[in-house]
Amino acid sequence: MAIEGSKNQKNTGRIRYGMVGGGQGAFIGAVHRIAARIDDKYEFVAGALSADAAKAKASGEELGLHADRIYSDYKAMAKAEAARADGIEAVAIVTPNHMHFPVAKAFIEAGIHVICDKPLSLNLKEAKALEALLKKKPNVIFALTHNYSGYPMIRQAREMVENGELGEIRLVQGEYPQDWLATDLEKTGQKQAAWRTDPKRSGAGGCVGDIGTHTYQLGNYVSGLTAIELSAELTSFVKGRKLDDDVDVRLHYKGGAKGHIWASQVAVGHENGLKLRVYGTKGGIEWVQADPNYLWFTPLGGQKRLITRGGSGAGAAASRVTRVPGGHPEGYLEGFANIYSEVAQAILAKRTGKKLDKAIQFPGIKDGVEGMAFIDACVKSSAKHGKWTKV
Amino acid sequence: MAIEGSKNQKNTGRIRYGMVGGGQGAFIGAVHRIAARIDDKYEFVAGALSADAAKAKASGEELGLHADRIYSDYKAMAKAEAARADGIEAVAIVTPNHMHFPVAKAFIEAGIHVICDKPLSLNLKEAKALEALLKKKPNVIFALTHNYSGYPMIRQAREMVENGELGEIRLVQGEYPQDWLATDLEKTGQKQAAWRTDPKRSGAGGCVGDIGTHTYQLGNYVSGLTAIELSAELTSFVKGRKLDDDVDVRLHYKGGAKGHIWASQVAVGHENGLKLRVYGTKGGIEWVQADPNYLWFTPLGGQKRLITRGGSGAGAAASRVTRVPGGHPEGYLEGFANIYSEVAQAILAKRTGKKLDKAIQFPGIKDGVEGMAFIDACVKSSAKHGKWTKV
Amino acid sequence: MAIEGSKNQKNTGRIRYGMVGGGQGAFIGAVHRIAARIDDKYEFVAGALSADAAKAKASGEELGLHADRIYSDYKAMAKAEAARADGIEAVAIVTPNHMHFPVAKAFIEAGIHVICDKPLSLNLKEAKALEALLKKKPNVIFALTHNYSGYPMIRQAREMVENGELGEIRLVQGEYPQDWLATDLEKTGQKQAAWRTDPKRSGAGGCVGDIGTHTYQLGNYVSGLTAIELSAELTSFVKGRKLDDDVDVRLHYKGGAKGHIWASQVAVGHENGLKLRVYGTKGGIEWVQADPNYLWFTPLGGQKRLITRGGSGAGAAASRVTRVPGGHPEGYLEGFANIYSEVAQAILAKRTGKKLDKAIQFPGIKDGVEGMAFIDACVKSSAKHGKWTKV
Amino acid sequence: MAIEGSKNQKNTGRIRYGMVGGGQGAFIGAVHRIAARIDDKYEFVAGALSADAAKAKASGEELGLHADRIYSDYKAMAKAEAARADGIEAVAIVTPNHMHFPVAKAFIEAGIHVICDKPLSLNLKEAKALEALLKKKPNVIFALTHNYSGYPMIRQAREMVENGELGEIRLVQGEYPQDWLATDLEKTGQKQAAWRTDPKRSGAGGCVGDIGTHTYQLGNYVSGLTAIELSAELTSFVKGRKLDDDVDVRLHYKGGAKGHIWASQVAVGHENGLKLRVYGTKGGIEWVQADPNYLWFTPLGGQKRLITRGGSGAGAAASRVTRVPGGHPEGYLEGFANIYSEVAQAILAKRTGKKLDKAIQFPGIKDGVEGMAFIDACVKSSAKHGKWTKV
Repeated sequence: MAIEGSKNQKNTGRIRYGMVGGGQGAFIGAVHRIAARIDDKYEFVAGALSADAAKAKASGEELGLHADRIYSDYKAMAKAEAARADGIEAVAIVTPNHMHFPVAKAFIEAGIHVICDKPLSLNLKEAKALEALLKKKPNVIFALTHNYSGYPMIRQAREMVENGELGEIRLVQGEYPQDWLATDLEKTGQKQAAWRTDPKRSGAGGCVGDIGTHTYQLGNYVSGLTAIELSAELTSFVKGRKLDDDVDVRLHYKGGAKGHIWASQVAVGHENGLKLRVYGTKGGIEWVQADPNYLWFTPLGGQKRLITRGGSGAGAAASRVTRVPGGHPEGYLEGFANIYSEVAQAILAKRTGKKLDKAIQFPGIKDGVEGMAFIDACVKSSAKHGKWTKV
Repeated sequence: MAIEGSKNQKNTGRIRYGMVGGGQGAFIGAVHRIAARIDDKYEFVAGALSADAAKAKASGEELGLHADRIYSDYKAMAKAEAARADGIEAVAIVTPNHMHFPVAKAFIEAGIHVICDKPLSLNLKEAKALEALLKKKPNVIFALTHNYSGYPMIRQAREMVENGELGEIRLVQGEYPQDWLATDLEKTGQKQAAWRTDPKRSGAGGCVGDIGTHTYQLGNYVSGLTAIELSAELTSFVKGRKLDDDVDVRLHYKGGAKGHIWASQVAVGHENGLKLRVYGTKGGIEWVQADPNYLWFTPLGGQKRLITRGGSGAGAAASRVTRVPGGHPEGYLEGFANIYSEVAQAILAKRTGKKLDKAIQFPGIKDGVEGMAFIDACVKSSAKHGKWTKV
Repeated sequence: MAIEGSKNQKNTGRIRYGMVGGGQGAFIGAVHRIAARIDDKYEFVAGALSADAAKAKASGEELGLHADRIYSDYKAMAKAEAARADGIEAVAIVTPNHMHFPVAKAFIEAGIHVICDKPLSLNLKEAKALEALLKKKPNVIFALTHNYSGYPMIRQAREMVENGELGEIRLVQGEYPQDWLATDLEKTGQKQAAWRTDPKRSGAGGCVGDIGTHTYQLGNYVSGLTAIELSAELTSFVKGRKLDDDVDVRLHYKGGAKGHIWASQVAVGHENGLKLRVYGTKGGIEWVQADPNYLWFTPLGGQKRLITRGGSGAGAAASRVTRVPGGHPEGYLEGFANIYSEVAQAILAKRTGKKLDKAIQFPGIKDGVEGMAFIDACVKSSAKHGKWTKV
Repeated sequence: MAIEGSKNQKNTGRIRYGMVGGGQGAFIGAVHRIAARIDDKYEFVAGALSADAAKAKASGEELGLHADRIYSDYKAMAKAEAARADGIEAVAIVTPNHMHFPVAKAFIEAGIHVICDKPLSLNLKEAKALEALLKKKPNVIFALTHNYSGYPMIRQAREMVENGELGEIRLVQGEYPQDWLATDLEKTGQKQAAWRTDPKRSGAGGCVGDIGTHTYQLGNYVSGLTAIELSAELTSFVKGRKLDDDVDVRLHYKGGAKGHIWASQVAVGHENGLKLRVYGTKGGIEWVQADPNYLWFTPLGGQKRLITRGGSGAGAAASRVTRVPGGHPEGYLEGFANIYSEVAQAILAKRTGKKLDKAIQFPGIKDGVEGMAFIDACVKSSAKHGKWTKV
């Protein structure tokens, strides 16, 4: 178990980081902060937690930031922090989607590592611009918090695919049903619902951008496959909603495998029902986010087996990111923390100039561009009645 | 509980029935015979259990048929039985698909009720011919054994939809993964695999015909919806296979609801994983065939609830077809028997000229034609890269 | 698959049987009749379905019995049927417990095979008297419907224990929670509750006799162990109840293994929650009656595996009593039918003088006496504050 | 959501704490440290992480402690820290059981708050001595990490019992099967196994002390009941083992309710299978540690319902200790962190002299003494063949 990943830490100390977004009333900012704390690899020292100065101040004070490191302007923050000797080495971006691009751009240009919430940006154009920018800044690490890929049993699944335990992959079945938008919640003033159903802040994809991309990224990560074309149908079931609240996608992967994604925000009875199933010529696997410590594996012609995090059958990839013994469940925050800790190791490797161990994995700009291309293709395909569209 | 449905039985006795197909080595014939016996509403008295005379004789003797009621020619059987005073009132057709049409035709023309295995026929043309024939024979009852609609919790689900407990239906999600054809089993001489992957005996649909139709019928039955158009992708993952072994279908229902079906014969880890989920504006339900005594229901904003067969929350429609108390599981054979018993009551109503109680329900020619139209549309849509196709 | 076990049937025909008890309003009688029909090995021809002549007549007619084979006096029935050339070969006894002994005695003395519902009798004395009687009547087969031992996955479990797959057995954990007697239902006139909570008709054990014995028999059957002493606590949680509605038992098995049984009729949330777990030095298994097609097996140090009825890992013992493929659930009635069909094969072997195949298994007088000794010891132990008591 | 419980934090800052035990190679120390970090209410500043000076130094450095706050002698640490202006306010004790008492005593006497791992001490005598000491030190807070009582759904269960939703409690069923000691692991040199099976370091109870006490405490916490007497059987299934590896306990609670606990370390197939079921006159609940975000509740006569952490039906007690939305699982570490955060609030209340909100709950000396009395009574009862023994 890699508790507190202490070997590097001893000599290097924690990574100083800041945050843009995530002030009072926000949701995902607090998740990022806990994720950064769990393995004790980060120190939270600066923030532009809100664009509203008063709120930024109140939020920063509540979180114990020093007065001179509480900002309301992310540009000012990037500039000031880059100039300090003890300035932040990394920034977490936890704003609504439309702010991902400008904020990321500012910090990348300032030479500060970026940990950005997903999806990457408002549109594919921005995504490609960030990709281009990062090519010019090879020393800046860019991570995208597709946090589900941090779950140990997802690492296990990927490892099993890589090891050929499933044979040649035929089918990737992903689904992510939720029900929190089954009514027009956005009209009640609920903040999360408001921006997520607003094209100006969310981009052209609603459900497809928010949870469809997660599902797509997870399928790609586990299967090791890349989609070449897709056919999608986006639906807004709730009257008056400006973005899709349900999406059905067919995928053609390179090499002949096929995939299917269903994501929905109106499927009554589901909280965060992310589920991934992958079928190959030699076996099939099944994983469900709500019970993330279990991976079901059936070898062709054999019995279904339960591989548990920390238990029999869990291999090296899962063990690396496991903290407590099997039967003691880890959850969402630990999965998220794994992404943060992987990034920390990458940052430390940069510091020391060491080559990064291949085992250390986190989603980055490639996943981000692929995700935006996925949203873009889904929206286009759906507008043409599900026409097959290149990704 | 409607055990032995005795009220009618007292005066009328059991229904004499025969069978075409289902001799030694077959699978579904024995299932039909058990289903017919469970509620004691039928008497098995005649059979053309095989087209091979020796096998027909051996099979018939084994099952205790009198020598003069063992046939190898279904036409001879239809003729002889129709002529006898104690001739069969109904015939069960349990042959491969290509024989459904000619056998059904012969018995309908002879005025004998038909209980036919699904899918209805080899193609849509035959289906419509049978439909036309039945219009000319209004006294002949035609039942199609979409047996899953006989499960008590499926009746419960339909009743809840009818009662508006789910509100307006938005989404119907059906899936039916299996794995028995994950390899080229048909090349090993396995009988079931051989005819089911052979277009001459199965028709133009493989997986879509065998289990896709079941899923489609079940979704329609529970939701009360009718599909108007669909987009399908049929795949043959196993090299050299002549028919599809995996199918992905999008459905547009009348009124704006949408549906999705995934059926597969190559999804390693699944035996008969039929699952149906229906989501409306007020609630969602979930049912799985492998655990058929449970129906999960979530009212909008409420907690997920477990309705059990025979338990709290099970209404009149489920209770009618329930034999044993909650917690004592009923299974596949009881669900199948419910179809048989419903048909028996319809036949008895015919005998006595009484009007059939609306509560008595079984799939018939309408389901059969819809099923063949579904297969036909899927095949056509898939050939055109998933083009939306009228059903 | 042993569908319709036809080899014997061809030459011998069905077994003629009758029933004592099980008239209109009863529960378990109908279960026995369905169980007898499922595999088509029995013909129901006579009955003393009630001690009330009018009710016996109405019940018999409803079930299609000939007028001259409808009795209200079981002694008259035993005598008359024994005298007929076409008399019954077997009788099913489905009365409340207090009638098991006199009825069984009458039919055994008349040379008629007996299939008796459990528990065997009102007390241990009667049980031993029946045992003695059967020793004098070696040609009479006596079966006790501990139906749970007929489930295929229970056969599988027993076979695995016999084959040493669990190593030396250490622990047998059985539980059977129900909730139907959580209130004083017996005071509402509910028939089932009335006799089951009445010592005159049920015997000295309430919950312990009704479901405790089932759990005990099942543990013994699967583990192959015999209890030598026990410590029990019987409780009547519902005020005014004359018999126990909850029982907790510790068991010491011969050879050092230990067991525990908890059965309850007041555990709100459980319908028929029978569960058996057996742990040995090399592995552990778990089975739940509500989902009877699954057997969970964990080899020491390995992953939990799901053995399914009809699926991978199911051995000969389970396959013998399996009718439909894996994933198509069988249930309570099929398990019950397996007992009936096993008994039928024993009766046919008697007819033909053949030795019974060791694979054919059903609970009999030994289980019955052990069950009564179990109840007896539980009642005595509980009266002495859980003192260890010989079984 | 009480993320970062920031209201108090704003003015008061983090609590400085140290640790005794938990150096390199230990397990539970790292769990405590993560638990302390998750909500950012603690700062780790001192430690006697090992009694071995070199190991203490290496461990302390790895964890970033200043050289002058790395100790190998807990007495020296208590003295030095009490003397510092910036000394620790609390200490976490994560040694094997035999060291709990002397370490706790030293820090309590030094006026430092204690967070101690369970069970409280080596024996009941020590427990009572600590209790007496704490009475003399009313300003010292003592917490015992019965961490399972920190799970939100356990809080929910307790709240439901308090609110009368289960009616009068009749039965408490707790079980905690594991399998890690199914072989004589202690003979292989495995550190955890070695001390846990050694009476000198563990005390008189093995399994009963390690996980039996957890189960007992959890049942008491949720039900609000106190046991007055018990009957226990302790078994050592593995040859040569000095302490019990399996325990079966009957409990009589004040007021007439009964309880049962089964804990085992040899139940092959279980990792940490803690499960609690409570049944009352009006309802029953069920909770399983491996899936801690679910609480199953069945009201008498109603349907089983799934209450989820963060979802519909979760009340105030659960919401207080919830971080992420329903469907995003929290786990073992978050439950543990809840205990830490509750204690932090108690410490902050001490600082400011405010009265502690009744909603803030954590296990303390009372639970500790009760746990030791439980072990003591179990050992005594078992020695007398399960004689009922006062707790």
